[in-house]
Amino acid sequence: MKPRAETSEGFKRSPCPIANTLDLVGDKWSLLIIRDMLHGKRTYGELLDSPERIPTNILADRLKRLEQAGIISRTAYQAHPVRYAYALSDKGRDLGDVLLALVGWGKRHIPHTRTLTEAASDPERRAPARRSARKRE
Amino acid sequence: MKPRAETSEGFKRSPCPIANTLDLVGDKWSLLIIRDMLHGKRTYGELLDSPERIPTNILADRLKRLEQAGIISRTAYQAHPVRYAYALSDKGRDLGDVLLALVGWGKRHIPHTRTLTEAASDPERRAPARRSARKRE
Repeated sequence: MKPRAETSEGFKRSPCPIANTLDLVGDKWSLLIIRDMLHGKRTYGELLDSPERIPTNILADRLKRLEQAGIISRTAYQAHPVRYAYALSDKGRDLGDVLLALVGWGKRHIPHTRTLTEAASDPERRAPARRSARKRE
Repeated sequence: MKPRAETSEGFKRSPCPIANTLDLVGDKWSLLIIRDMLHGKRTYGELLDSPERIPTNILADRLKRLEQAGIISRTAYQAHPVRYAYALSDKGRDLGDVLLALVGWGKRHIPHTRTLTEAASDPERRAPARRSARKRE
């Protein structure tokens, strides 16, 4: 008998590697968190401060899911109150290929898009400063 | 004055090409539809018949969004009742790079995943036959 994980019943939707990868990171936010971590962000506060203004509840949820998937790990860097730093695992860093493919497609097909690095080196075109208040009216 | 599209205000979330690409195809289903179209599927019925069992309302919604984004086009191939065939545009076919990156990551990091092509050539491991009735009890 084959172990259950080798049968298609062991998968959420199908054995397709695309479907299974999308079940982990196929949403509008997870890959932006990975992008920011590849750029060196480590704390909740740093990750919250993205140009896309990720809502706090979505950030908390995605960090939890990415940790459960082994894509990131979490370590306490302060005790009172406890605060965590997040790091990409090898598995998480390996998503760099997916991000590069998305960058390539976006730049080829969506006019005027530019990476965070490009935006940072061209101040005239920078995104407007983030509003300090996070609450939405 | 710069045209509005060149300012960050012209973008839904930010000028980042990853964020803008995810705004078009960043969900659990759109890239599976593109995958199936790259494999030659053209009609609504063919696209419905995927191993992931895409719900009919989600398929209809995603086809509409992908058409609006210029990733696919739609042509009537029958008049009474009208039926449509879908085709990838050049822009849509160019998502092949993103799919390849997702396949690569999935195969490296999610044990026992296999592409539809691999599953088809290995009948012993094929997914179970699709149930004919689509309704869920």
